[in-house]
Amino acid sequence: MEFLLANDFLADLSRGRGSTRHLYQRLREAILDGRLAAGERLPSTRQFAASLSLSRTTVTEVYERLAREGYLEGRHGSGTYVAMHATTPARATTYAPLEATRISEWAKRLPRSRSIVPTRELVHDFRPGLPDLANFPIDTWRRLAAYNLRVMSNDVGRYGEAAGLPRLRAAIARYLAHSRAVSCEADDVLICNGSQQALDLLGRILVDRGACVAIENPGYTPAAAIFEAMGATIAPIPVDADGIVVDRLPRDARVVYVTPSHQFPLGITLSLARRKSLLAFARQTGAVIVEDDYDSEFRFGGRPMESLQGLDRDASVVYLGTFSKVLFPGLRLGYIVAPRALQAPLTAAKWITDRHASALEQLVMADFIAGGHFRRHVSRMERVYRERRQVLVASLDRFASAWLSLLPSHAGLHVTAELPEAFDVDELVRRASEAGVGLYSIKPFYRRDARPGLIFGYGACGVADIVEGARRVGGILRSMMPAVGFEPTTNGLQNRCSTN
Amino acid sequence: MEFLLANDFLADLSRGRGSTRHLYQRLREAILDGRLAAGERLPSTRQFAASLSLSRTTVTEVYERLAREGYLEGRHGSGTYVAMHATTPARATTYAPLEATRISEWAKRLPRSRSIVPTRELVHDFRPGLPDLANFPIDTWRRLAAYNLRVMSNDVGRYGEAAGLPRLRAAIARYLAHSRAVSCEADDVLICNGSQQALDLLGRILVDRGACVAIENPGYTPAAAIFEAMGATIAPIPVDADGIVVDRLPRDARVVYVTPSHQFPLGITLSLARRKSLLAFARQTGAVIVEDDYDSEFRFGGRPMESLQGLDRDASVVYLGTFSKVLFPGLRLGYIVAPRALQAPLTAAKWITDRHASALEQLVMADFIAGGHFRRHVSRMERVYRERRQVLVASLDRFASAWLSLLPSHAGLHVTAELPEAFDVDELVRRASEAGVGLYSIKPFYRRDARPGLIFGYGACGVADIVEGARRVGGILRSMMPAVGFEPTTNGLQNRCSTN
Repeated sequence: MEFLLANDFLADLSRGRGSTRHLYQRLREAILDGRLAAGERLPSTRQFAASLSLSRTTVTEVYERLAREGYLEGRHGSGTYVAMHATTPARATTYAPLEATRISEWAKRLPRSRSIVPTRELVHDFRPGLPDLANFPIDTWRRLAAYNLRVMSNDVGRYGEAAGLPRLRAAIARYLAHSRAVSCEADDVLICNGSQQALDLLGRILVDRGACVAIENPGYTPAAAIFEAMGATIAPIPVDADGIVVDRLPRDARVVYVTPSHQFPLGITLSLARRKSLLAFARQTGAVIVEDDYDSEFRFGGRPMESLQGLDRDASVVYLGTFSKVLFPGLRLGYIVAPRALQAPLTAAKWITDRHASALEQLVMADFIAGGHFRRHVSRMERVYRERRQVLVASLDRFASAWLSLLPSHAGLHVTAELPEAFDVDELVRRASEAGVGLYSIKPFYRRDARPGLIFGYGACGVADIVEGARRVGGILRSMMPAVGFEPTTNGLQNRCSTN
Repeated sequence: MEFLLANDFLADLSRGRGSTRHLYQRLREAILDGRLAAGERLPSTRQFAASLSLSRTTVTEVYERLAREGYLEGRHGSGTYVAMHATTPARATTYAPLEATRISEWAKRLPRSRSIVPTRELVHDFRPGLPDLANFPIDTWRRLAAYNLRVMSNDVGRYGEAAGLPRLRAAIARYLAHSRAVSCEADDVLICNGSQQALDLLGRILVDRGACVAIENPGYTPAAAIFEAMGATIAPIPVDADGIVVDRLPRDARVVYVTPSHQFPLGITLSLARRKSLLAFARQTGAVIVEDDYDSEFRFGGRPMESLQGLDRDASVVYLGTFSKVLFPGLRLGYIVAPRALQAPLTAAKWITDRHASALEQLVMADFIAGGHFRRHVSRMERVYRERRQVLVASLDRFASAWLSLLPSHAGLHVTAELPEAFDVDELVRRASEAGVGLYSIKPFYRRDARPGLIFGYGACGVADIVEGARRVGGILRSMMPAVGFEPTTNGLQNRCSTN
């Protein structure tokens, strides 16, 4: 993301010409108040110095100091960026005056952070939500792409169907019916650009300004951001050891967004009893349940649980999934399985939004599934991830169990750990980053009553890096809390889990 | 598009069990009132007969009759569809009761028609908006795709930047600066999924419910549909021989959507005087001008006219374009060049909507431009289209000049012709379709004061088909109006053109 200097900000920077301190303070303020968003790239020291008529040494000094303090991070060969965790993403954005008079209410409500570019300097990176790319059968993918490019007839060059390539829809329907007990046929599947667009389309067809949308707390922040930008009132619903606390759902919730297989970010599974009461709630109130099954391809024990959609007898559940978490995030393909009544508006929404998903990617994906490559890849990766998971759990147990308490989880690509009450997670993240370890606080996923915790993704982190990362985390924890062991508080989820 | 039978409709069909007439009438009604949208696929006769417990013969008879009457059209090997021009697309959609309680106001305002699948039976098809696919250098494209798939590093597999691949943004900026005099740099370019998404994103960041959006009348209907779905009040602004009549713009217009290079659908060019007054209007009122330069790559004489954006000194113009019309529609890549103040919200909008465009397509497109293939393709196609255009104009002149009056046009992939007042264009289209000629009325592009006319696309129609198509159109016109020559009316645009 290119760093766009607002004119007034630039003018302000120029005012204290020559002063290292002035530049340092202004940049730091801009990072803290969100004008410079996490992940934004700063100009090179050369460019920046030139544009401010400062010496390059001054700018370099300021960059280095801000980097030491965790506000900036350098990446080899790609410049200097605002550190991902330097600021909490601002919810309401302030724009330049000109802009403010022109942009819509929706745009004003958009979160400012725009691009999750993984930090490359972190050798031991527990970033969640990324799959292992090294094991992806890129040769197979390339072969299928080359084949489809060869046979790509005029038809493929023309506009396609809004709901997606029929062959891919059929393949997804078969896969979901078989492996996730989703009740669907090809016609029920709509292909879209990843689960992000799935949520956006669903928000657009389901949510009016002022409508109540219930979301797990903690929960998947980007989903909340989508609904909130549409003017929805977000009702954050607590999550306990059985998953979302259905009794706490407001009766006027029009949409309930849930992650039943592997709660994001806590990782727990929604219990069968809760599933039934959630469906009953929808039946009684007419709410639509959005089931985001974002990484349920991978299960590691525990009682297998079919999709919530498969239990639904009232056409209340919209099921969505994505291939980003299984194959690679750059592949912008996701899918929505919607009840019949929602299919026409959903297809119309997709068509008016951007017509249809990439024709070539759909063809390749369809062949990838039909040729059995998808199933093989999932089963191979299940073994890979199972090992990483075991190593992670064992390593955290060995090095950090005095402070970290793992929450029960049987699926997906991350585990989550709680920390003692009032623990300074941000400081831990900062110190870990200095030690080359990428740690991720769960705080940004809470809308209220945040509890200290860490989400450990192991999708993109090899076994050796996991062990070493966990060891370093243990060392930092020891240095931060030399005399304090982990004591579950009475309202800790871990505690509630063990008593349930 | 799959044909989704609403339950009540199915029940109604079943009521007249066994009756050919009942089925015929109900289907015809459904087509006429828009419940069955243009382009929708009907179930096979076998499936439909089974679902209604009717004999297959009955269903076949009804399909055949409706096809004869122009309501349905068969396509070899792909089933039966509601004819594209059987109905005007319904603006407000009625949904099944369950659905109506759940879907948003936005979704209720969406147009129902969802997919423009070109009809294959029409040998002489003047469908506008399609490029020639036969001349596309698919081998080059394939080679570049194979290369990028081979070198596709882990990075490409990760999430990319919301605004698009920097290399592609730079290539587009250079191309636009050079060939369209667009004032921009790489950072000003945002890559999106075709111009459809460009309009959707712009609508979302610029348009609030109740805002006034001015659109040319006649104009590009999908743009109006996007803004209207967002709750905008559409102000249709007349177009004369100089283009949009700027004096008629309402002072409270927040967005003015225009096609200055090649007015859609009339094909005329916005005059320099009008361009200046349009920019003055924006300067005075703070309106944002959206310049859709959808097929300006091809120019065939007339005074060359740079982009409106290139004239703008007040950051009032958002410029957008697409590769669909130049390369192939299945390629979902378009671009937006926005003033600085709109870039942050636009990028945030893209990111929350679907993250970023397809990584592979962006890589291939960047190489296609960098390798000079894009420029070569445009220049080759200009020759191809120039010939088709000449042949079309000459053939219409030869066979149909007594009834058709061509509007002046120097760019793009279509020419437009006016017909005498009160002429029954729908009947002409129907008869042409029976004769294997695809004709397209401009009526759907008017929001008011519609005038009879036809838009002739020659992008996807070869020279021989153009000549024969024009000959048949001439024959049909003669049969419909044996004794009537073309008399331009005093309020006809043609008339106004010649007097200006």
